[in-house]
Amino acid sequence: MNIETSFLDHFAALSQIGATPNSGVERQAATQADSETRQFFEKIATEAGFEVFTDAIGNQFAKIEWIKDQPSILIGSHMDSQPLGGRFDGAYGVLAALHVAKTINQAVQSQTFTPQYNLVVVNWFNEEGARFAPSIMGSSAFAGIYALDAMLAVKDHAGITVREALEAINQRENKHPGPIMNYAEIHIEQGRILEREGIDIGLVNESWYTQKINIDVIGEQSHTGATAMADRHDALITAAKIVLLVQKVTGRFPAESLVSSVGKFHVYPNSPIVVARKVELVADLRSNDPKIVQEARNFIFEEIRKLELSDNIQIMAKDFDIRPKYYLSPEGIERNRKLATELNLSCRNIATMAGHDAVAMNAVIPTLMLFIPSINGVSHCEKELSSDADMLKGLKLFTQTVKSLLLQPLPNDQPYISQAIE
Amino acid sequence: MNIETSFLDHFAALSQIGATPNSGVERQAATQADSETRQFFEKIATEAGFEVFTDAIGNQFAKIEWIKDQPSILIGSHMDSQPLGGRFDGAYGVLAALHVAKTINQAVQSQTFTPQYNLVVVNWFNEEGARFAPSIMGSSAFAGIYALDAMLAVKDHAGITVREALEAINQRENKHPGPIMNYAEIHIEQGRILEREGIDIGLVNESWYTQKINIDVIGEQSHTGATAMADRHDALITAAKIVLLVQKVTGRFPAESLVSSVGKFHVYPNSPIVVARKVELVADLRSNDPKIVQEARNFIFEEIRKLELSDNIQIMAKDFDIRPKYYLSPEGIERNRKLATELNLSCRNIATMAGHDAVAMNAVIPTLMLFIPSINGVSHCEKELSSDADMLKGLKLFTQTVKSLLLQPLPNDQPYISQAIE
Repeated sequence: MNIETSFLDHFAALSQIGATPNSGVERQAATQADSETRQFFEKIATEAGFEVFTDAIGNQFAKIEWIKDQPSILIGSHMDSQPLGGRFDGAYGVLAALHVAKTINQAVQSQTFTPQYNLVVVNWFNEEGARFAPSIMGSSAFAGIYALDAMLAVKDHAGITVREALEAINQRENKHPGPIMNYAEIHIEQGRILEREGIDIGLVNESWYTQKINIDVIGEQSHTGATAMADRHDALITAAKIVLLVQKVTGRFPAESLVSSVGKFHVYPNSPIVVARKVELVADLRSNDPKIVQEARNFIFEEIRKLELSDNIQIMAKDFDIRPKYYLSPEGIERNRKLATELNLSCRNIATMAGHDAVAMNAVIPTLMLFIPSINGVSHCEKELSSDADMLKGLKLFTQTVKSLLLQPLPNDQPYISQAIE
Repeated sequence: MNIETSFLDHFAALSQIGATPNSGVERQAATQADSETRQFFEKIATEAGFEVFTDAIGNQFAKIEWIKDQPSILIGSHMDSQPLGGRFDGAYGVLAALHVAKTINQAVQSQTFTPQYNLVVVNWFNEEGARFAPSIMGSSAFAGIYALDAMLAVKDHAGITVREALEAINQRENKHPGPIMNYAEIHIEQGRILEREGIDIGLVNESWYTQKINIDVIGEQSHTGATAMADRHDALITAAKIVLLVQKVTGRFPAESLVSSVGKFHVYPNSPIVVARKVELVADLRSNDPKIVQEARNFIFEEIRKLELSDNIQIMAKDFDIRPKYYLSPEGIERNRKLATELNLSCRNIATMAGHDAVAMNAVIPTLMLFIPSINGVSHCEKELSSDADMLKGLKLFTQTVKSLLLQPLPNDQPYISQAIE
């Protein structure tokens, strides 16, 4: 079976794990479905002869050691998903990386390719952050951006910690892939730029500046029937105003230069005849221009202070999960542009609005990231779609990218060794 | 031990069941804590020699049959609570009824009182409706206002039915208390009228007209980072507007003539980086004047149609749990006024804004309802408070009320026999 058929067959099989009625998947971090994708990863990798292990934060690795004690090139993405998420986001990149690794290993075995470095495939833990916040957790802990202990102590809505959830699915071995030269990832765009322009490949050159704001509105619980309107301190009323405020702030900047939203919104006690005592919500702000996010953030904080007074209610707002703007290696982008051209694939530079594991890794080592087109630009939903043809084009280019890095990595003063060990 | 000391001791003990840190209780319907209050009820009642049993919807009865095959007077309230609710709402009335029954039974045993009817104490199932909607479920099913089958099929947020939850705590015996002449209930006011006017007892003469609206906002799930603002169909934005609309509608009517709120509000998928695909919410409208509720309801429906167009989103709104205005027996009110005056207690007529089991029972038989003062008028929260002195004044009057009904019930063409049997 050729690599393309094998890839598409495996992708179809992987899409069955945690499958939802409308062709999506639900595989939140460290759930049963996430555990099944990890077994799927392990099966493919061990059958190919790779060594499979996990680190202390549940990142799953498959290592191919061709040259003893030589540093590695790391490639991969994540297999967890949003609730009712899409089957491409992350999963495409991990499966592409596994197949690239198999292809290259066959070439090494048949002595048609001689790598100068070893290769590691990774399935990062909890990129999505729906169950455990923040998102991009595994790669950020690996890169030392977030403290391992703090991440292991994060609780889901049911009070289960990351540590407990990972141990329950037996995915916390505290093993490490050794020194890493470069990281490379291929992913779906999740926007509509490539599709609109009819371009095969996006060369990710920068990431948007993003931040979240954790907001708790503290009212007073009372009876919806028996409490006079004037006597209420209804946390839901004020929280609703904050939702609209977070949307309205985009109007202060050029169209689409800022995206903002509230996605997480928990009401307590959430009973039909009880005035809410508390709402916990998370606002999400993103722009290619850090100043726009900072200005929007300041506007929201000012308006929240006004709401506290006008609504006579307590609001606690805290900056959370601030991610600076990153620039990916220009040399890596040029190398990929050359490889794409050789394969007759069209490409363009593209900024990523979404966060990615590659953005976390870029903080510590030279990192490459490729996008393939998303149909209609929709993501984090069951309708997420990329064509087989586009997935295979990406696979083809990514194979050349990884081969190139195995021969000559992007310049790196010192290989990176993760300190996320217990 | 005299009845007052016994009552206060039992009230303190009952308040420990499902106790929360700030002197409240959490005893949602058919939970472990609700099961414990039922064992508490059963212990007091069986020790006093009453027969204890439950019907098909989990209403718990304690019957004292002094005169074979004679109809009964039914007295009681409910012991379930809101999440983080108060220890007085409902619990006071059931415990008062049990102590009144004990006192009268002792008088019957010592031949100082000769009743003409039997007596049944009831602990109604699920008055609060936080776990299973609608509220006032047990008494409404008993009174034939809601179909038994439909109520048994209601599911909580975890998908557990009322039937399953009741069977899990062994509270569904399908036994019945027989024909009932009248119903009487004592309860905390949950408002601040009695406290403000320094009055001991409220004589409930009418109930407010109430209705709920079940509203589902259907948007489209997408990525908060990668989706352009213009491409979003964010269910939370529109739902936030509906919350504010439901509040704003009160401004169209004289102050405090309408109370409105949204207490239940569930966001899907509720992830920090996902635009919400759906919000389910419940609006609650109440007024002493049915026309005001109907006008407010129509205004909300019209505005919702406009929001559907302006926000390009689907909104499904359905009338739910409409409760007409009820008038309680004027003869009963006059009888209680006379009894209160004899005991040197001040009293006044009062309308109930909150729904009550007595309102459901009033639909089928002559019903009496008494209120005692609530400190600061707060309810459905841990701060709910009534003084010992006020509770004992209520107990004293309620004893006389029940004795009076046992001698001469309020006129009733035909005793009521519940058809809520399987």
